[in-house]
Amino acid sequence: MRGKRIRLLADQGELELLREIRLRAGKRVRGGAVRLGIGDDCALLRVRDGEELAVTTDLSIAGRHFRMDWHPPESVGHRTLARGLSDLAAMGARPLAAFLSVGVPRELTVRNGRRGSWVERFFEGLFRLGGHHKTPLAGGDLAESPIALADIVLVGAVPAGRALLRSGARPGDLLYVTGTLGGAAEGLSRLAESAGKGRRVATDPALCPAELSRHLFPQPRVQLGMALQRRGLATAAIDLSDGLSTDLAHLCEESGVGATVDSSKLPVADGASLQQALHGGEDYELLFAVRPSIRIPHAVSGVPVTRIGEVTRLKTGRARVMIANGTVLKPLEPRGWEHFSSFLSPTERRP
Amino acid sequence: MRGKRIRLLADQGELELLREIRLRAGKRVRGGAVRLGIGDDCALLRVRDGEELAVTTDLSIAGRHFRMDWHPPESVGHRTLARGLSDLAAMGARPLAAFLSVGVPRELTVRNGRRGSWVERFFEGLFRLGGHHKTPLAGGDLAESPIALADIVLVGAVPAGRALLRSGARPGDLLYVTGTLGGAAEGLSRLAESAGKGRRVATDPALCPAELSRHLFPQPRVQLGMALQRRGLATAAIDLSDGLSTDLAHLCEESGVGATVDSSKLPVADGASLQQALHGGEDYELLFAVRPSIRIPHAVSGVPVTRIGEVTRLKTGRARVMIANGTVLKPLEPRGWEHFSSFLSPTERRP
Repeated sequence: MRGKRIRLLADQGELELLREIRLRAGKRVRGGAVRLGIGDDCALLRVRDGEELAVTTDLSIAGRHFRMDWHPPESVGHRTLARGLSDLAAMGARPLAAFLSVGVPRELTVRNGRRGSWVERFFEGLFRLGGHHKTPLAGGDLAESPIALADIVLVGAVPAGRALLRSGARPGDLLYVTGTLGGAAEGLSRLAESAGKGRRVATDPALCPAELSRHLFPQPRVQLGMALQRRGLATAAIDLSDGLSTDLAHLCEESGVGATVDSSKLPVADGASLQQALHGGEDYELLFAVRPSIRIPHAVSGVPVTRIGEVTRLKTGRARVMIANGTVLKPLEPRGWEHFSSFLSPTERRP
Repeated sequence: MRGKRIRLLADQGELELLREIRLRAGKRVRGGAVRLGIGDDCALLRVRDGEELAVTTDLSIAGRHFRMDWHPPESVGHRTLARGLSDLAAMGARPLAAFLSVGVPRELTVRNGRRGSWVERFFEGLFRLGGHHKTPLAGGDLAESPIALADIVLVGAVPAGRALLRSGARPGDLLYVTGTLGGAAEGLSRLAESAGKGRRVATDPALCPAELSRHLFPQPRVQLGMALQRRGLATAAIDLSDGLSTDLAHLCEESGVGATVDSSKLPVADGASLQQALHGGEDYELLFAVRPSIRIPHAVSGVPVTRIGEVTRLKTGRARVMIANGTVLKPLEPRGWEHFSSFLSPTERRP
């Protein structure tokens, strides 16, 4: 997966690119859940008896979810897949396959110097993350479009009736988050700065400094989500795509509860501000609720886990989500990504 | 489904629209395969033991797959879903659920007179066809975009190992098509004519003249595909989205065979030309191969079925697909929709 770059001579054009994509996707298709990949009217997937399917779709559009002048194409491919994988992680589902529809202006299929075309590099980033999470590309669509856009579909499997939902939190549950918060928002502001100075940004997560990597190459918590599900640790979970303040409000709303967050306990990422940790979004960490009788280790699947607050009863006249700063208790307004872009899928992100 | 229109006051804006979409999608979610619809990180779908999944995705972009000045939004919604359902039909799969990512310029969410906004009317057309095929909308995404676009995902189920593939045709098999051919291409040219004269086009399939309806509101052969699968009638199948000449070439290629079509036998749609029937595309009929010993009725699931030719061995020095006109045998070049837009998904259509 990491081995072979997609190589494409300019004069071979798009059909050659397609062949390369099929070839690389095909390599990941043998065995696993994909019985039939790209090449027929539909892909065919196998599910084990007693499992149900988790399906999610996320649309990314140039100028809205990424910027052509800021994000290297490898990052756009990575982030496209990461968004979908993170949704599966939040349900505790095992990825079976990804499907991708891509629209690009024709010039983005043309080779640009030694590094390949925008589309090639986009797939490079997507396949790299897909290989890491054993998620084959089983199908999709590619069309000419006046702007670059990508719609990712993830299909996963989870034991029937055992998925982590947003709706299971109960008053008294403790709230945990994985990793650190605010790093993606902080990374975005650094990216804007670098771009403003005309600096080149790393195209490989292994070579990218951590502070930028949190934005350019976020790591969805797939293994951790599956571990929470398998071990029955969480009563509810959601991924932090829109920002803690917004996503916690979503979880509370679906569960019919309130929550209090202790600001001093938040695992704020190095260099990030408290505001970025509260509202930044795109960290793709998991937020989950746990019965107080359950002991949660300091790390799950190698990722640190931090207790940040607790689930409360809803009180009339009090905001759903409160934040405690020492002895001062204030409402925590959802100020993450919302409105227009988050209609059907409740999880949508910026920029 | 047909009962309630999506109503939206201009000043209520997009959030109200979202609520309406969720409400209407929700109605279709109870019972059936969708255990959890819109509102969590993923939708959850049930599959019966012994079934496998069929998944397909199709991207439609304004100016490429439809025209804002030609196609009423109800038709765009209908055609978006029809493309996906037709792919399921070609596999003989039972639809479980649809997922939809939509990108629209903000002005398309604003009410336009008494008929509702473009987006409302788009969903109107999509829900109408979805209700007809008992296909709930289980999730999706909606984002602001400089151009209108829609990516549809269909998830279906089929008994494991029993899906209709493109790859099963053998020399000696007879070739059949459903319905009539060329009607969609002919309808498109009429649509262009009407639009040129500033005529208004019907927004409801029930009120649309047949010659336009074949283009604006094509009927995917879902029941027929499932019947072929259940009764084990076909050795291979494909849907006619790109045009007979192109889709037959795809089927032959995947099966490693050749084919001969008898031009006098083609069920050319009223008003359409032979060229439109051969290359037009977007009819969303099914093409399938059958062992010669099997008797195929004149109609399956109420749709006429016509024998149009047969599967042959590949001969060196002869084109893969030939067309017979009386005693004259000529190569049938694939001249349907191809190239750039048909990379990942082999089925892509125009305009």
